[in-house]
Parts: sequence; structure tokens; C-alpha cells
Amino acid sequence: MSLLVVGSVALDHVEAPAGSIEDALGGAACYAAVAASYFTRVHPVGVAGHDFPQAHLDFLAAKGIDVSGIERADGPTFRWRGRYHESLNRRDTLLTELGVFEHFEPKLSDAQRACDWVFLANIHPGLQLGVVEQTASPRFVAMDSMNLWIDTTRAELLEVLRRVDCAVLNDEEALQLTEESNLVRAAEGIRELGPSTVIIKRGEHGALLFDAEGIFAAPAFPLREVVDPTGAGDCFAGGFMGSLAREGATDAGALRRAVVHGSTVASFCVERFSLDRFRDLEAAEIDARFAAFRELTRF
Amino acid sequence: MSLLVVGSVALDHVEAPAGSIEDALGGAACYAAVAASYFTRVHPVGVAGHDFPQAHLDFLAAKGIDVSGIERADGPTFRWRGRYHESLNRRDTLLTELGVFEHFEPKLSDAQRACDWVFLANIHPGLQLGVVEQTASPRFVAMDSMNLWIDTTRAELLEVLRRVDCAVLNDEEALQLTEESNLVRAAEGIRELGPSTVIIKRGEHGALLFDAEGIFAAPAFPLREVVDPTGAGDCFAGGFMGSLAREGATDAGALRRAVVHGSTVASFCVERFSLDRFRDLEAAEIDARFAAFRELTRF
Repeated sequence: MSLLVVGSVALDHVEAPAGSIEDALGGAACYAAVAASYFTRVHPVGVAGHDFPQAHLDFLAAKGIDVSGIERADGPTFRWRGRYHESLNRRDTLLTELGVFEHFEPKLSDAQRACDWVFLANIHPGLQLGVVEQTASPRFVAMDSMNLWIDTTRAELLEVLRRVDCAVLNDEEALQLTEESNLVRAAEGIRELGPSTVIIKRGEHGALLFDAEGIFAAPAFPLREVVDPTGAGDCFAGGFMGSLAREGATDAGALRRAVVHGSTVASFCVERFSLDRFRDLEAAEIDARFAAFRELTRF
Repeated sequence: MSLLVVGSVALDHVEAPAGSIEDALGGAACYAAVAASYFTRVHPVGVAGHDFPQAHLDFLAAKGIDVSGIERADGPTFRWRGRYHESLNRRDTLLTELGVFEHFEPKLSDAQRACDWVFLANIHPGLQLGVVEQTASPRFVAMDSMNLWIDTTRAELLEVLRRVDCAVLNDEEALQLTEESNLVRAAEGIRELGPSTVIIKRGEHGALLFDAEGIFAAPAFPLREVVDPTGAGDCFAGGFMGSLAREGATDAGALRRAVVHGSTVASFCVERFSLDRFRDLEAAEIDARFAAFRELTRF
């Protein structure tokens, strides 16, 4: 069961209390693809510029990811530069240069169209719609978004929501989208807009899953040290979708296990800069931490 | 197994998006005592002024609480007035008048001294120490505190921590006390100061329990409507201590169930102003929500 991931490919410059990193592999499509690669075959679709290091593509390929969908365009790669505060809960974006990402228009190959599982990472909702229209008949489509699109392209975003099975948003986005002050009402409101499943990401506070069967609350894994929170939400979504694809199921039990798998890979992601934690992360470590989640929440 | 609770008795004026309430029953000792009353016999120790309505004492007594330890002093009751923001995550304190609480000096009766279970709500650590010294040989003593005491009476607070079994603090207090930026390290640091059990309250994000066996994460119960968050943390502590007292046990399993019982009563507390939700709350509703917590976290 293959997973299609459409989103950004980026070079990140991150400054955090633990240090800094330059020209690091980033972008939602890369974070989600690497996280999902522990569960299923992943086909990311995105665009890189002339300055994108071959070593980053080699790393993705070594994870078993099909890198043929990462187009190489003539121009600079999307660059993001951010600085985290001491608490890591807040960050300042110092620079966003879209580069070749500005004119990104995802065109799917036959193999990509045929994917049963689709994750639309945070890109312009018009592009998300275009991807949905190119797909054949996927079993489960999930989408992410951001405050910018809620503000500026609300109509297209609502159309995307009508067409997907699952929305994965953070708490602020969910409240903003529904103009609610309560997360439960916000999630119910989003379900009424289309997706039968809504996931609210709350960073270090975990995630809430809302589906036809009720609510599931998963904590974030408590860590003694967090180095770089960048991409944790995308890793969560990648692990979530990868877990569903591996199980080949979307019942309530599969959705809950997928949320915990998403939380598990996200917890590894933040232990090092960029995607570095996944350079040597073994599948057995994911299984062990999934089991630790059971112990963490058992009563 | 009786529970001693020492802390404030107050008249609250609360303004929130859902409305407002005046001269309402408040104070940490009252919130904790009412929450604990669903599990065990409670002996609150505190001081009320001449203006404290008899109806509030009658309500406590009707809950089976021993109100003989609530001294009636000549002067005004401690008054707190606060206003919540739209999101309910933030509030402004508009007024704090200590009244008779300023000269509160807890003196325990024989029955109070003999209690096996002790909760020292947020009062001056010097008073908390005085209570510990008056008790006979309690099985389990828990304490709360606040940023003011961490700032101004640190030495006495550290002495309290050396003498108790459990610290119940919110996330900001735990970080401030240990000068840490990470909650896991903060909790470990507090355990090194004395208490074998540390609970970090995170409001709508739930609670974390740290003990010799590891970490337990409990979510807050997701509610469609929150009316008044005042006293939720004190209800949590009261439910936690009451549950331990009822089980007569402090092993890892009992501590985890106690955290969920604390979260359960706290979730009822915020559904109405002041302690009003407990006027008609039945024990069966607590059992049902405890079961719902299992469903909420099962995977």
C-alpha cells in the first residue's frame, strides 16, 4: 500500500539553544516521507532547486523513498530560517525564500496517481485540490494547512476539506478555521465541513483524534532533551499515514494506533536537528517507543 | 482513612465569558475538600471571616465534610476577584484581599493530627511546615505551592519539599523552582529535593506523574464547554488524595488511578462556576467519567 506525499522540499537554517544547522534537509514533504518510510513505500512529490545537495536525495533514497517525484528545477531551493527561544515553544521566522517552490505545480505520474494513501502537506489549497483531482480513487486522503491559507484562500481551503477524509491541524489553526474558542467544538465544526476524521496537534501536549467513534487523546512522549522541534508535525502526519497504509485499515483502532505511531516518530524527530535522528534510527526503536507509549498511558 | 486538607477558604468574584458570580465559595481548601469528599472523609483546616455565608458551610457539611476545622475569625473573609479572557487560558487577578487569612495559623485538633493522608494546599511554606510538625505520623503528605513562595521564601519551601511525599505543581512553577526549561528534567530535579512523587499539572493539557516506576501521562477530559477554570487544580489535588485515601495504597497503580480520579473531578469542576457542579454531582457520574478516561486513552 503506497503513500503519496505532496509538499515542500526545503533547505533549513535552524538556530536553537542546543546549536544551529545550515542547509539542512527540510520541508514538509521530506519530514513526512522519512517518517512514513518506516511503515510503507512513499512517493513524495515536490520541487528542489539547483542548489539542493545530492546527499539529501541520497539520504531519502537510502530510506527506500521513491525520489523520482522530487523534480529538480532551475533556481534556488525553498529556504526557511528560524530561531527557537529558550523554551522551544516559540520561534521566530527569520527568512522565507520560496525560490522554485513559488511556481510548484504538482503533476502526478501514473504510479503516484494510483496511490491508495495520500497526504497533502501544507501547500496552497489550490495545489492540494489539483492533486486530489489527479488521483485515481485513493482510500484515504489527509491534509494539513496553515494560518496563511485560512486567512487568504478560505474558499479553496473549504473545498479541499469537502474532498478529504482527514484534516491534521494544530490547535491554533483549528480554532482560527472555525472561529471557536474550544477545541472540541472546533474539531466537531471541522468534521461538519467534510473530513470524517480530525486530528488536532498540540506539540509537546500531544494530539487529539476525533472520529465517528469519539475522541482519542495521545500524549507527546516526555523527553529529557529536545534539540529541534522543526518538522515534528510533519513527521507526526507521515507516521500516522504510514501506519494506516501498513495496516491497510482506517477503523477506529487503526486510527488510534496510527496517532501513536505518528507521536512516536515525531518524538524521535525532535531529538536532533533536521532529519538527523532518522539517519541511524532502527525500526525496532520505533516499536520499543510505541510500547513505551502504552506504559506511559496505562492505568 | 481520613484526609487532612490545610489551605485557604475564600469568597470569589469570577468574571468569565459565560457570565459572572459573586461571593462564591472558593479557596483551595474548599475546592480540594469537596473533590476529596467523593472518596473519603475530609477534615479541612482554614479560616473564614464574619461575612462568610452559613450556606457555604452547610454545603460543605452536606458533602460529609467535617467543617469543625474551619475557624470563624473576626474580620473579612479572604476575597479573590478574577476575570478570564475569551480563551479561558488566561486570567487577570483584579483583587486579592487577605482579610482574616493574613493571620491564619493552623492548629490541629487530635482528630486532625491523626489523619493518615495530608494535603497542604498553597499557603506560606512556613505554615505548611508547622502543619507537618503537628501531624502524628501520616502515611502520605502532598503539597502545592505558587510562584510567590518560590520567589520569596525559597529556603522554607525547600524544607517543606524535604518533608513531603508528593509535590503537585503546575508546569510554570516546576520550571521556575528548578530553573529548568524542560519538564522532565524539572520533575527529576524536584524528586531530588525530597518528594518521591511529583505531579505536574498542565491545565487543559492534563497532568504528568513522575514516580520511582517512571512517567504516567493523563490527558485532561475534553469538554465542549468550560465555564470557570477556577479551582480545577485544587480539585485535581483533592481527587488525587481522596482516591489514595480510599484505596489505602500508594503503589504505582494506585497513584495512576488517583491522577485519573483527580483529572475526573477537575473536569466536573470547570463545567460550572465555583463549586456549583458538585451541588448535584453523583458518585456514579464520577465512575462513568473515570471509565470514559479509559476509552479516551485506549489504543
